[in-house]
Amino acid sequence: MRAAILRNRRIEVGDVPVPEPGPGEVLVKTLACGICGSDLHIYHQARDDAAGGGGIVMGHEFVGEIVDYGPDTNRRLKPGTRVNSIPILGRKTGAEFIGYSADNPGGYGEFMRLTEDHLLEIPNGLATEHAALTEPMSVGWHAVNRARLQPGDVPLVVGCGPIGLAVIAGLKIKNIHPIVAASRSAKRRELALAMGADIVVDPNEHSPYEAWREQAQTGRPDPGPTLPGWLVGSGLKPAVIFECVGGPKIIDEIMAGAPQDARIVVVGLCFEAAAFQPMTGMRKELDIVFSNSFHRHEYAETLHHLAEGKIDAAPLVTGKVGVGGVEAAFHDLANPISHAKILIEPWHD
Amino acid sequence: MRAAILRNRRIEVGDVPVPEPGPGEVLVKTLACGICGSDLHIYHQARDDAAGGGGIVMGHEFVGEIVDYGPDTNRRLKPGTRVNSIPILGRKTGAEFIGYSADNPGGYGEFMRLTEDHLLEIPNGLATEHAALTEPMSVGWHAVNRARLQPGDVPLVVGCGPIGLAVIAGLKIKNIHPIVAASRSAKRRELALAMGADIVVDPNEHSPYEAWREQAQTGRPDPGPTLPGWLVGSGLKPAVIFECVGGPKIIDEIMAGAPQDARIVVVGLCFEAAAFQPMTGMRKELDIVFSNSFHRHEYAETLHHLAEGKIDAAPLVTGKVGVGGVEAAFHDLANPISHAKILIEPWHD
Repeated sequence: MRAAILRNRRIEVGDVPVPEPGPGEVLVKTLACGICGSDLHIYHQARDDAAGGGGIVMGHEFVGEIVDYGPDTNRRLKPGTRVNSIPILGRKTGAEFIGYSADNPGGYGEFMRLTEDHLLEIPNGLATEHAALTEPMSVGWHAVNRARLQPGDVPLVVGCGPIGLAVIAGLKIKNIHPIVAASRSAKRRELALAMGADIVVDPNEHSPYEAWREQAQTGRPDPGPTLPGWLVGSGLKPAVIFECVGGPKIIDEIMAGAPQDARIVVVGLCFEAAAFQPMTGMRKELDIVFSNSFHRHEYAETLHHLAEGKIDAAPLVTGKVGVGGVEAAFHDLANPISHAKILIEPWHD
Repeated sequence: MRAAILRNRRIEVGDVPVPEPGPGEVLVKTLACGICGSDLHIYHQARDDAAGGGGIVMGHEFVGEIVDYGPDTNRRLKPGTRVNSIPILGRKTGAEFIGYSADNPGGYGEFMRLTEDHLLEIPNGLATEHAALTEPMSVGWHAVNRARLQPGDVPLVVGCGPIGLAVIAGLKIKNIHPIVAASRSAKRRELALAMGADIVVDPNEHSPYEAWREQAQTGRPDPGPTLPGWLVGSGLKPAVIFECVGGPKIIDEIMAGAPQDARIVVVGLCFEAAAFQPMTGMRKELDIVFSNSFHRHEYAETLHHLAEGKIDAAPLVTGKVGVGGVEAAFHDLANPISHAKILIEPWHD
């Protein structure tokens, strides 16, 4: 089958064997697949690496169409049904990720095998390109669930890439307002407003923490200076800050900017060691909550949010490419001032 | 008045002026004062410092006896009443810490001024030396309150200095068992058992995380390997790990050892930058909760816990010195295998 293959330090169009569905597995034809920030990370790692990628067919944000069933399957859904799935094969020998190794090709190729038990039927009327956003939107929904939100909390979303936008969508579904969001990209600030943000800030021009503070006033009288903040609180509404940037500096930067008693939900990825100041966390009594991916039910809920129009996915798809356009799309996304999500349609050139 | 004074890179016995109580303030005669780990930190910093301490009378874990009242006081408690207080002067011009500067002498000297509004009367029958433990015990009580404990949580206390022991005492009051505690000191493991720990571990011999795991079995069937831990949970009871060691390495070390979904409550102090691996937090979906000092009501509750025998303070006081013995006590505490709390009685030599 044709696929965009990561090998020799680049992404090239080539042929790999069609995967064979094992027990409990299904063969699907890929209809669309998003490019994720973690794919970009793998790509840049491969460029520094002797193996140069070693033949990986990436892609874990996919929608497919059922083609064939492996042994030990119950075949409830007919061939031709549109489906998606968490990007994991649930095998008796252990879980295997789809789209991260040469063995389990992901949605950058024409076919994938999926675990039958993980399949979700795409509801009628939901466009394939919007259903392909289920995976990244689930990451935001999970982060919002991890945040233990209470009415009156004032969220600040730092970074408005696809994950920051997914967090904003989740906050809107939970009806937690005002939502303050920060991004250096004008396009992404516009998308943040489209997804439900109330206030957007360019951190090159205004401090996101100041913008947050303006929204977090309680009107209660100032407790005055006679006791320190950790004894009397900040006098502001509770802060929940979503770190949706990633990398080794942003957690420390957010800790420095955060108000007293803030909860910081870390959703951005950082693959290296990071430095931080524990005394800042201590003085402000911060909570740092790491949020990873999603639970299965959150993935299913997100598909329904998309189908019911609770998330307006249309503005998020800012580009589409065939297999031949993947490497160029990766270069565009390396400095993504004008993009949110680029989808691959692997049956196109 | 006589005091143990930090200056010229050492702690020397000398004379400083008796502090004058300002508006809303009280003069007390110091009866006893504990040596805190943060005092040790200030001492070691002063030894590297040109100012060499600059005349600080430290001490923020004190009990005193009312001697005199300043202006604008309501004088509800008679002179001679034993009192303690949070170590903060609540002034109209701002909060000032007691025992951290040359201006506001702490309990290493014969007299202190305190804010009248912060005074708590020591209940009859509570020994002065035990009442002097209110401050460090409050730090543990606050950490336990910050941990959002639920029945079924299994706590692991890493480090059994005074703060770790205070955490254990707080867990016992909340009836959260089994309590697993880790310390390299045999004396401190013995104290941990006396304070309420159920299992103690020497990390040189056994992994505290393995000891925790043995206590955290649910008896539920193993979910098997078909899905990763972050999707199905650890299958163990919830972990709440109290970091009571301090310093730049321990947070990363605990993150590496912690099970899936653990809450890590940071109570130990780290005055420098620390490095950690965000991906470890991400993969395990850890929560890091920084816990600083205590609230006023927690300080008052702790005094009552001591008075009612809910905390057995007697084993914690492992030494007493007069002003002349302070520097030697600091040296003993630098490698504190046999000590928990050393009290200073500044009216003794």
